[in-house]
This record gives sequence, C-alpha cells and structure tokens, in this order.
Amino acid sequence: MKVKIFTVGGTIDKVYFDKKSHYEVGNPTVKGILDEANVTVKLEIESLLHKDSLDMNKEDRETVAKAIRKEENKAILVTHGTDTMVKTAMCVKKTIKGSNKTVVFTGSMTPAIFKSSDAEFNIGGALIACQILPPGVYIVINGKIFDPEHTVKNVVKGCFEKMK
Amino acid sequence: MKVKIFTVGGTIDKVYFDKKSHYEVGNPTVKGILDEANVTVKLEIESLLHKDSLDMNKEDRETVAKAIRKEENKAILVTHGTDTMVKTAMCVKKTIKGSNKTVVFTGSMTPAIFKSSDAEFNIGGALIACQILPPGVYIVINGKIFDPEHTVKNVVKGCFEKMK
Amino acid sequence: MKVKIFTVGGTIDKVYFDKKSHYEVGNPTVKGILDEANVTVKLEIESLLHKDSLDMNKEDRETVAKAIRKEENKAILVTHGTDTMVKTAMCVKKTIKGSNKTVVFTGSMTPAIFKSSDAEFNIGGALIACQILPPGVYIVINGKIFDPEHTVKNVVKGCFEKMK
Amino acid sequence: MKVKIFTVGGTIDKVYFDKKSHYEVGNPTVKGILDEANVTVKLEIESLLHKDSLDMNKEDRETVAKAIRKEENKAILVTHGTDTMVKTAMCVKKTIKGSNKTVVFTGSMTPAIFKSSDAEFNIGGALIACQILPPGVYIVINGKIFDPEHTVKNVVKGCFEKMK
Repeated sequence: MKVKIFTVGGTIDKVYFDKKSHYEVGNPTVKGILDEANVTVKLEIESLLHKDSLDMNKEDRETVAKAIRKEENKAILVTHGTDTMVKTAMCVKKTIKGSNKTVVFTGSMTPAIFKSSDAEFNIGGALIACQILPPGVYIVINGKIFDPEHTVKNVVKGCFEKMK
Repeated sequence: MKVKIFTVGGTIDKVYFDKKSHYEVGNPTVKGILDEANVTVKLEIESLLHKDSLDMNKEDRETVAKAIRKEENKAILVTHGTDTMVKTAMCVKKTIKGSNKTVVFTGSMTPAIFKSSDAEFNIGGALIACQILPPGVYIVINGKIFDPEHTVKNVVKGCFEKMK
Repeated sequence: MKVKIFTVGGTIDKVYFDKKSHYEVGNPTVKGILDEANVTVKLEIESLLHKDSLDMNKEDRETVAKAIRKEENKAILVTHGTDTMVKTAMCVKKTIKGSNKTVVFTGSMTPAIFKSSDAEFNIGGALIACQILPPGVYIVINGKIFDPEHTVKNVVKGCFEKMK
Repeated sequence: MKVKIFTVGGTIDKVYFDKKSHYEVGNPTVKGILDEANVTVKLEIESLLHKDSLDMNKEDRETVAKAIRKEENKAILVTHGTDTMVKTAMCVKKTIKGSNKTVVFTGSMTPAIFKSSDAEFNIGGALIACQILPPGVYIVINGKIFDPEHTVKNVVKGCFEKMK
C-alpha cells in the first residue's frame, strides 16, 4: 500500500520567528519525523501550502480538496494547522462523498522542532490510521479518532473534542 | 473506550548504564510520552516486567499472556523489547484464540530518552491501532501493522518485515 | 563563590502560544538548564523582566543596571535578549565603573525549548566566565568572550562580532 | 586565538547498540555540539581514542599526554570519560610542567545523544575556560573549575568535588 502525504502548514511546521522574521511556517517537518522513526512504508510527500490555518481562505481549502480529489492513492494523510482543521476536513468530506479514499488530517499543538512536542506521536497515529480506517475523512490527533462533522477544537484545553 | 497498557521493558525503556550500573531497563517511559502528546484517552498503565526481551523466558511470556487473558478492557497495548516481540505476540495469540480483544505490541529501536527516537511515533501508532483494529494480536511499529505469525525482525536493517 | 543570576527575557526564554499563534517570553529557562547540567555552584536566580530585548526602553536597562549595582555577590550572570544586549551591557558598564564585579551577559539565538538550541552551551560558557574573568562587563556567547564596547550583533549571520 | 580539541571517548560519546544491547563509544559528538551552538571560534578537532575511561591503560594516557606536548596551540580542550579523567589530567599535568599551555578536560555524565544531557553545557564551559584560564591543567565540568590534583569524582552523586 502506498500513502500520499499532503502538507499544508500549521503549528507542526512553525519555526522560530520574531519581529524581524519574514516567515513563520517553515518547511514541512513530516519527512524528518518519518526518517527518525525509521518508517519503511511506501509514501510520497507533496507540499501544497505553508500556511497558519488561521490565514487560510476558501481558495486554500479548495486547493487541498482538489489535490485530494485528483490523487490516485487511496490512503491519504494531511498535515494541517489545528485551528481550522475541522473546516478544511469538512470541505474535503463534502467534495469526496462516495469516494473510496481514507483521508486523515493531523497536526500538532506544539511545533515539531520543540524538545517536547506532540508532533511525532500524532504523525505516528495518523499514518497508521490512514492505512486501516474505512473510506472517509477523519481527524486523528492526540491518541483519538474524530469525525470532523462532530468535532471542535477546545482552544482553552488545547485539544480536540466531540461536539456536545 | 478505555485502553489498557502493559509495559514489559525493552529498548524503549532503556536508561544509560555503564560497567558500574546495576540496572538497564528503567521505569516505563510510555506515561511520559502520553503526557507530552496531550493524550486524553481513558487509559490504565500496568508494569508487568522490566526486562530486555533477550532475557525473557517462558515464564515471563506466560506472565504477559495471563495478564492479557484476565484483562477486562478490549483494547490492549503492550510495550515490549523488539528482539523477541514476535515470540511473545505469538504466545499471546495462541492463548487468546477466539477472544474479542485487540492486542497491539510495540516498542522502539532507540530508547525513548534519546534526542532522536522512534518511541513517540510508535506509541502514537499503536495507541490508535488498538482502538480501531478488529480483534486479534498485532505488532504495530515504524508505521506498519504486522501479523506476528508472518513477521520477523530484520536485525541488520533494524526494522520489522513480512516473512518471505 | 556564589553566583547571582539575573534574568531579563529574550529569545532564550521564548515559548510558543498556540492560542495566539506567536512566540512570547515565558518563565526563565536558566534554572532548568542548570538542573539538567547537574550544576552544584552556589547560586541565586532573580527574575527582573520578561522582555524581548527589542521592547526594552531606557527605564528597563536602568532596572538591570540598578539591580547589579545593589548586588552583593561579585560574580554576576545576566540572561538577556540578543538584539539589544550590547546596549544594556554598555549601560551597565558605565554605571559600575571601577567596581570589583564581574558581569557576564549571555542569551541565545534559539529558544531553550527547541530540540536544537545554543542555550545550554551559552549558559555553560557564561557561568564559567563570570567565575574567572577579572572585574568588568562582558558578553559571553557562542564560544567567545566579547567586550561590549567593541561588539555588534551580526543579524544576518546570527552571531556576535568584534566591531570593525 | 585557535583552540585544539582532542577527543578521547567517554560517556559523552556513548551510543546505544541494539544488536548487542549495550552502550559503546561512538564518534565524537563535540563537532555537532559546536555546530548547534553556532560557534565561530577557530578550532581543530583531533580524535585520539574512542575509549570508555575505565578501559584506559598507561599507554592510552601517555598517548593523550604526548599529543598535548607536541601540540602547537596553547588553548587545548580534551573530551574524556569522567571515571578516570582525574588520572589522565594528572598524567598530563606532570608531563607539561612549566609549559605555557592551558589544558582543560571535560566530558559528561550523560551521553550527548540523550534528550537531557550535561554535554552541551560542559563543552560550553570548557571552551570558554581554555581560552581564558592561565597556563595549567584543569577539569571544567558542571559549572565548576577543578585542579585535578585536589579533585575526585563522587560516583554516588554523579559530580566532581574538591578532595577533603
């Protein structure tokens, strides 16, 4: 089985920036994470955007949805900012209704370049999930599997939750 | 859903030791990994052994199998040394034939206390796997899902593979 | 010998705020660095400010200078942002002319919480320096000892240099 | 000023060998530490040995002493295992009596490849020390400067101390 990974940006790829910096979202960190974890799954990484998800607009989400629609591989992982991950996941869900693809969104609350980060753990969970979940669109993060249709990000707690 | 985690030892929990040290396998690192990853899954951790898996004997593997047999929760994760993980997984598979439990074995090639380690990634994958795989016994490591009956550890490459 | 450590802020103490999607100065990281390095030197840590050094004004620098003037201990280490470290060091140098104190400024180009950071190395160098340099005011960073009167920060290279 | 760095082995350079299930001395880690800390000091690194210092014999220590005697540069840093660092430092002290060289020994209690290690901090301190201490032989570790003639390693506490 081959996995396609699309990177969109988000905290997971944040680098250090201060008032003098011109960029905030750096290069995708997922390849480094997969190499460090000695992953031998056949996969392909494609960088779609380098955006903080708060800066994403309708066109950006359609860019992501379109890339997924055109993708041949059935197992798809998307790294994305957590703030509007639900929104993009819903957009994709609508657009691939009835397809046989398994699309898993993940990201992290802390940049991958931090000593202590949830990035490696989340990528590990999402990579397994996209290979075994039935066709559909999911968010897999911090040890749980979420249906974007019933999920919100709890900004105070810094985690995702099932909508009440 | 509640997950039960059994820790057995292995490289994942190795601490630094030299000629003067008396201990090699330290306390289980899985809790620290779950805390760092902000995991909110309901779970319980029980430490069965602190062994390098090359030092495990028949009684040790039966200890693991027995604990799994008696366990109420259906989703079970076992952290274990990689050298004889297949052996213990097979022992457990025989012993819980026909049960409705999903047992996932994982570990790491590099200690969790190393700057660069596959530990977090593997725990992330295994925790997701034990919540969604159908009943059975599996090894989930370095991005892949293995059936222990057809798996070997490739010591040279430092990864698991499907038996030829 | 007892060392007094004053913390002022800077990149070394930057943390990432997921909610606000940017970096801010958090609690001083120097204590954690000293603990990790198993430092047994008698010392005392006092937090004066939590500022990015680009946000420091004349009053802030005078706050630092005053604390140093009033300090009893002769060996003093100051952690400070790198952008205006030379400015504060010069301000202190003028104010303690003729004193028998050794004041060493340091900081880091990368936050201490990053996997890869110069923080530990710089604190290690500065702590040694403040115990053995003759009375005066210095910047000790990235392996070198600088006289603030003849030093600039090379923003492009991300290091300090002797003024041409 | 140019600094010569000799690497001898020790815990600082220990790596984990999964196949053999123990730690061995790997390649010197000092270069990586200096690069991470963005060090611009002119320096040269020469690897003399790759030994755990408990395995060093009289010939090994003479190898280190001889290299230091023949060395042109006056500022010398030696990375060495901590268990018999005092012994080698004393051997060198006898052999370069009256010379104008400043020789600083350092190492670490925890391998540099560990998430939490005193390696970077110690290298940072030793590099500064060898540039500013007067001619002589020293041990600079965990924030302190020691005269090897009056120093022992406290194995229980895991630190160096002045002899009672």
